[in-house]
This record gives sequence, structure tokens and C-alpha cells, in this order.
Amino acid sequence: MKNLKLDIELLKDHVSQKDLKDLQSSVTSVNKSIYDKTCAGNDFLGWVDLPDNVSQKEVVDIKNIAKEINDNADHVICIGIGGSYLGARATIDFLSNPLTTNNKVLYLGHNLSADYMNDLIAFIQNKQCYVNVISKSGTTTEPGVAFRVLVNALKAGLSKDEFSKRVIATTDQSKGALRKMADAEGFRSFVIPDDVGGRFSVLTPVGLLPIAAAGFDIDALLAGAKDAAAFCKNTQDVLGNPVLTYAAARYLLYKSGKTIEVLSAFDPSLQYVGEWWKQLYGESEGKDGKGIFPASTVFTTDLHSMGQYIQDGKRNLFETFLTIENMRTKIAVPKVEENLDGMNFLAGMDLSDVNHQAYRGTALAHAAGNVPNMNISLADRTEYTLGQLFYFFEFAVAVSGLLLKINPFDQPGVEAYKQNMFALLGKPGFEDRRKELLGQS
Amino acid sequence: MKNLKLDIELLKDHVSQKDLKDLQSSVTSVNKSIYDKTCAGNDFLGWVDLPDNVSQKEVVDIKNIAKEINDNADHVICIGIGGSYLGARATIDFLSNPLTTNNKVLYLGHNLSADYMNDLIAFIQNKQCYVNVISKSGTTTEPGVAFRVLVNALKAGLSKDEFSKRVIATTDQSKGALRKMADAEGFRSFVIPDDVGGRFSVLTPVGLLPIAAAGFDIDALLAGAKDAAAFCKNTQDVLGNPVLTYAAARYLLYKSGKTIEVLSAFDPSLQYVGEWWKQLYGESEGKDGKGIFPASTVFTTDLHSMGQYIQDGKRNLFETFLTIENMRTKIAVPKVEENLDGMNFLAGMDLSDVNHQAYRGTALAHAAGNVPNMNISLADRTEYTLGQLFYFFEFAVAVSGLLLKINPFDQPGVEAYKQNMFALLGKPGFEDRRKELLGQS
Repeated sequence: MKNLKLDIELLKDHVSQKDLKDLQSSVTSVNKSIYDKTCAGNDFLGWVDLPDNVSQKEVVDIKNIAKEINDNADHVICIGIGGSYLGARATIDFLSNPLTTNNKVLYLGHNLSADYMNDLIAFIQNKQCYVNVISKSGTTTEPGVAFRVLVNALKAGLSKDEFSKRVIATTDQSKGALRKMADAEGFRSFVIPDDVGGRFSVLTPVGLLPIAAAGFDIDALLAGAKDAAAFCKNTQDVLGNPVLTYAAARYLLYKSGKTIEVLSAFDPSLQYVGEWWKQLYGESEGKDGKGIFPASTVFTTDLHSMGQYIQDGKRNLFETFLTIENMRTKIAVPKVEENLDGMNFLAGMDLSDVNHQAYRGTALAHAAGNVPNMNISLADRTEYTLGQLFYFFEFAVAVSGLLLKINPFDQPGVEAYKQNMFALLGKPGFEDRRKELLGQS
Repeated sequence: MKNLKLDIELLKDHVSQKDLKDLQSSVTSVNKSIYDKTCAGNDFLGWVDLPDNVSQKEVVDIKNIAKEINDNADHVICIGIGGSYLGARATIDFLSNPLTTNNKVLYLGHNLSADYMNDLIAFIQNKQCYVNVISKSGTTTEPGVAFRVLVNALKAGLSKDEFSKRVIATTDQSKGALRKMADAEGFRSFVIPDDVGGRFSVLTPVGLLPIAAAGFDIDALLAGAKDAAAFCKNTQDVLGNPVLTYAAARYLLYKSGKTIEVLSAFDPSLQYVGEWWKQLYGESEGKDGKGIFPASTVFTTDLHSMGQYIQDGKRNLFETFLTIENMRTKIAVPKVEENLDGMNFLAGMDLSDVNHQAYRGTALAHAAGNVPNMNISLADRTEYTLGQLFYFFEFAVAVSGLLLKINPFDQPGVEAYKQNMFALLGKPGFEDRRKELLGQS
């Protein structure tokens, strides 16, 4: 795959080339079941061909609204949670510089914090804002409450027409509360396809509108994913396709007792890619009492926190590194005459080269400490490369989930807390559950 | 403990009151070995009485410099990694509002990202800055390189005297490269006590100066910790002291096969408290092939990502919730006539009450899903309460680590990657290791 490379050299004491080859027939059959749409959860396979199926008209509409937002507003407040939040956040954070990139996009509706919400409302006083409310149903509690609050805040200062113009709904084509509201209020809207689950939705308008509004190139993001999709379709050999290698290797590691995967990124811009990945992997695989527990770290930062555990703790984990080959900028380590810190051996070296040796040193140390690890090397910090990475991880989790013999596309367990919460909050229809819980707690 | 409450009701199917009582004699002996300073790692017990031992003069000096920074500078750049970064960051994030609190404190030297560093340097152009460089030795790579770069940036625009005034070193009393530089350049400095390890150092000048510079009340933070320390000394009964209850319960859960602990905070302000906690617990317990793997989440955000795994995945985890009883602000769920989203049953309710029922619903759902869980309830978002929480977690990890029969105060595994990195980077003195690694990789 053009901008991604997978290195599995340091798996060798745990997963051999032969082990991977031996899994070829299982992988081939799983692969076939994805493309044939015969696998478990086959009504949620829209993501497979999504990069090819996004309509040019939709992309143009998204870019036009993004331009309108940038021309007319200080901020767009994206209301969404889970898959309606993490894809955009991961992309925007990966491509931004934390201090100097404008914070055009703000997030709300991904928690129930009164202080967080009041802080955002105080911040947007006297600012011009659009709202992008993202929800398939329109009835999820967190974004639902946030949208009610923001509607009140917006309506206060705007004419009815101007208010309607400021809200963009990303929701179901025809069903659900948010669709009804959009139609009733005259909001412009985008459609979340029926066959794409939340955690696979970053390349639908769910992710694309916030990303475009933040000023990033959604054509390049889609192009990266499209090339990755074509590559996957054309290369179904476990050893020749890094997506399948990764899926097969982590399945074998899991079977051998490595039940925690730590995704360790060697750049802070990847922090929220880690958060996105945890939803994709945890929600896809964590069911029926099975699944690799996904954890994420940012190195070298967390080598000074989680490093000790990874090196020497309980030996039930493996690691996947994310490294970036070409950073956008360089910075040379300065030479200091006195050299009191003894670091003149680094003088003149680009900081990224130091970081790269930190990665190599870590990979070797952790492998020696019985933590098998592999590395996904990203060519650069661009939309194209991230598009490839999104598709890489999406396809791989489908394969590894199906190898595990679970349905990677549902999330039945997410409902449990909601049912209890509704019951405890006295939602009509949950009276029996309420009695049960209040008896029990 | 005044501002913290521990609820262990939902452990009942896994850890009973009797189980906890049965551990009393072990806990008593571990407790005694801490206060007697006879336990493993007893040269690093300075944190036990730290809240009592911080000198009033030092606190005044810190507050004076914090005032000077606020009077004269736009930002103070805190250079540090691991324990020299996370305590201050956790405190400042917990007490701040993310959008409206001034970002007086910036962080550097906690990664090796060229883009991050260049972004910070671009951001501080034409701004007045102080630097607080925090390192026991002054030779740790990440902060060492960052300090070299910042010294050059600062020196360029300032007289020698003014430059010296702008750098505050927090380091060893007499040894090490940073102490030597501070003495040579005339930097003002604060001392990191010899008997306090990095991850236990938030209540030393390591944490206190950045926290004071950010505008927060370090007297109240210390008072909270001091009251917690007194409480621990006076209440050594496993069931009567929540610190000991927590330590004993997690030890018993670990022994029963629950090898992952997820710290799940119900407010985003606690995100970096989770990061600080992961270092404290992972680095203290993760050794000799043992230890609970520490993971952290922010709810309800991550109920929509990690929620599925926690509810239904591999059953080797338990959960510790962090909830906040009294948020600083309230916000009522608005009533909407049309009620298309069906949420009028929440109308008029404070968002924190919704959040609290989300917590209760989650705790019950996860317990029913075979994830035993407990809750640490924080009275509010104040310095005093956080001081109590820091001491709570510090004392508890000492007890649980000693129950595990490891030394909770060392971190031998953190060196492994550094040794490799130095060898790969060609540091003088690492020639043999270099040959070994280059042969092997």
C-alpha cells in the first residue's frame, strides 16, 4: 500500500511466516465472505466500497457548505458521540498543529458534563456559529440534549431563516427524529447510509463535513481510502497484503494468550487516531466474552508512564506501533559548548531521527521483554495517508473479527447502560426495568 | 475522607466484606512497613509525609514566582516528561475549563515530535515567556533536547540577566547536569527531594510551580493531601479507610483473574487524572511479570467506544469509576414543544443529574455483565478534593504493590528502551550494545 508499510520482523518469536501462511485458507474464505456479502453482519458492509461510492455531488455539496461556514462563521459546533465524533476528531487532530491551527471545529454532545457545556456556551458568546448535528436516530441522549441547548442559544439571536441556515443535520435519509426535525425546520442535511455503522462512518458526511469545515482536503482523504480499497481487492495474499498480515497476526497473537493490544503512536498528532481505533476494535471484537482489549498510548510521552508495565508487567500483551516517516518540519538538536547534559552526540541531528531511534530502541526492548510488536509506518501527515490508514484498520478488523467468529458489525452491549439509564431517569416505557433496578440497587 | 467516598457495593459478587476483612493482617503489616520505612523501596517514601513536610517558605517562593510569571509573561513553558509532566497537567486540566481558561502553561519536552516543537516555537513568537525546566538529572533526552532548543529561542531576544531570570529549574539539590547549569547560568531553582520518585512528585515544586503559575490554589491542594495523610495514619482498618479498601479490593480482584483495571471518569476534566493514574499504577505495579494493566476512559464519551468491550468482551477486567458530586455549574435540559426526540421526560432536569443516572445505569449494567466495579465519588472540582485524591491513589498503590510483593517505588524497566536508543544514536559508552543491536536487527 503506497503510503503505509507494515513491519512484522519483531513478531518472529511468536508468529512466524509459516503461521501466517497456514492461515491463508481461513483468511481467503473470510475475505470472500466480505466481498460476497455473505458474512455475519452483512447488512453493514457499506464501508467496503464506500470510497468508490461517495458521489461527486455530495462531495461538492459538503465543500460548498464548508466554504459557507468558513466565510460566515467563527466556529462550527459538531454535535455527535462515538462514531459521530471520533473520526472527524482523529482526522482534524492528526492534520492540525495543536497551538497554531485555528479551532474552527468545536465538539459538543459527546459527554454529559454541565461544566463542559457551559464553558462552550460562554466561549461562543458574541461569536458566529454553525451547528452540525450528527445522529442516525436523533434520540441519543448526549447529542440530543446538546442540540436542544444549542438550538435555544442560536435561536435567541437569529431570525428564523438565518437559524435554519445555520444548522446542518447529518442523519438518516428518511427515518428518525432528527430527519423529522430537519424537514420541519428546513435544515440542510446529509445522509448517513443505512449500511455503514457509526464506527465505519468517517468517510461519509459524518466525518467529511467537519473535516472539510476545518479546512482539510476531503478529496485526498477519499483518494487514500480508495487506493487502499483497490489494493485490498487485488491482493488477497496474507503475506502480500499488510492489512491481512495485521489481521492474521493479531488473531494468532490473541490465540496464543496475548489478549491486550497497545497501539503506540510515536507522535502526539496520532492521539485521537488511537481513540478512533479503540472504538473500531473494541466495539467490533469485544463481544461473546471474546476480543483483544484495545489500549492506546502516545510515545515517547507514555514510555515514561506505561513503559515500565509494557517492559516488565504481566506478559499478556502485544504492541502495534504507528510511526511517521516524514514529518512536516525539521528541527536540529542545537550544539552547546559546555555540554553539561552530555547530549552533544545528538547535535545537528533532526529531532525526527532521534524519535525514529527511540522507536527502534523501544521495539527491540519490548520484543526482548516478551512483548511481540509490529509497526505501521505512515509516509507523512497528510489526508491521503490517513485515508489509507482508516481503510487499513477497517478492513483488518472485519477480517480479524470474522476469524474470531463474531459479528464485527453489531454492538449489542452498548444498549445495556442506556436501558438502565432510561429506567433510572423515568423514561416512559421503562417502568418495569426501573422497578427491577430500584429493587436491586 | 472528607471529600472522597468509595462505594464498593457492586463488587459484592466478587469481593465480599469478609474477603476484605480477611486481608486485614496483611494490610496492617504492609501499612506498618510503610510508616516504619522498612518496606521494599524504603528510600523512596518521602511522599508519605510530604504534605506535612512542604516548607511554608518554599510555598511562598513558588507563589511569588508564579505571580512574577503572571505579571510579566504570556506563558510559562513547562519542560518535563512522565512524573515531571503528568501531575501538573492532571491538576491544571481538572481545574480548567477547556475553552475559556487561559492557557498560561504550555508543555514541551514530553515527546520527540519535530512538528509539535516547531508549532510551539511559532506560537510563542512575539510573546513573553518563562521556562520551567523540570528534571532530576537534566540528562533525560526529551526534556534535554527541548531545553536546548528553548534556551536558544529565549537567548536570541533577551539580555543575559533577563534570560537568567526567565528560567526556573526544578531539579536535584546538588547533583546532576541541570543543577550545574542552574548554578552556572544563575537560574532560580527548586529542589526535587531525593526520596520522592517522579510519579509521586506532584506535591513537590515539580507540580506546585506550574499549578500555581496556572492560577490555582496550591495551599488548598496541599491541605487536601495533608488531611488525607492524617486520615490514613489514623484509620488503618481495611473497611474503615477507603484507601485501604480500594487497595485490598483491587489486589483480591487481580488474584481472582481480573487483570485489567479501567479507570472510568464521568467528566472530561478528569482525562489527565487518568493519565497520571496510569503512570502511578502501571509504573508501580507492572514488574516481575505481574501487575494490573491500567487503562482509562472518559464516560459517557467512551461508553460509545469502549462500552461494548467492557459490557461483553473478555471477562478479565474490573472498573473504578470517578464521579463528581457537585459540578461548578448547572444547566437544565430545555423543554421542546414538539418533542420529536422524545426527551421531554428530562426537561428541567440538571445535566449533572442525567450524568449521575448514566453512571448508575452503567455501573449496574457492567456489574450485570460480570465486570465488578467501584466508585470514587469526588465532592467537587476543587484543589482540596484533588489533593485528597492524589494522596488516596498514592497511598493505595503503595499498599497494593506491597501486597503483590513487588517494590512499588522503582521502575527498572523504563531504562531498557533508553539504553537501546542511546546505542542506536551512537552515544559514547554504548558501543557494545550498539554492535549487539545492529547485529540483531
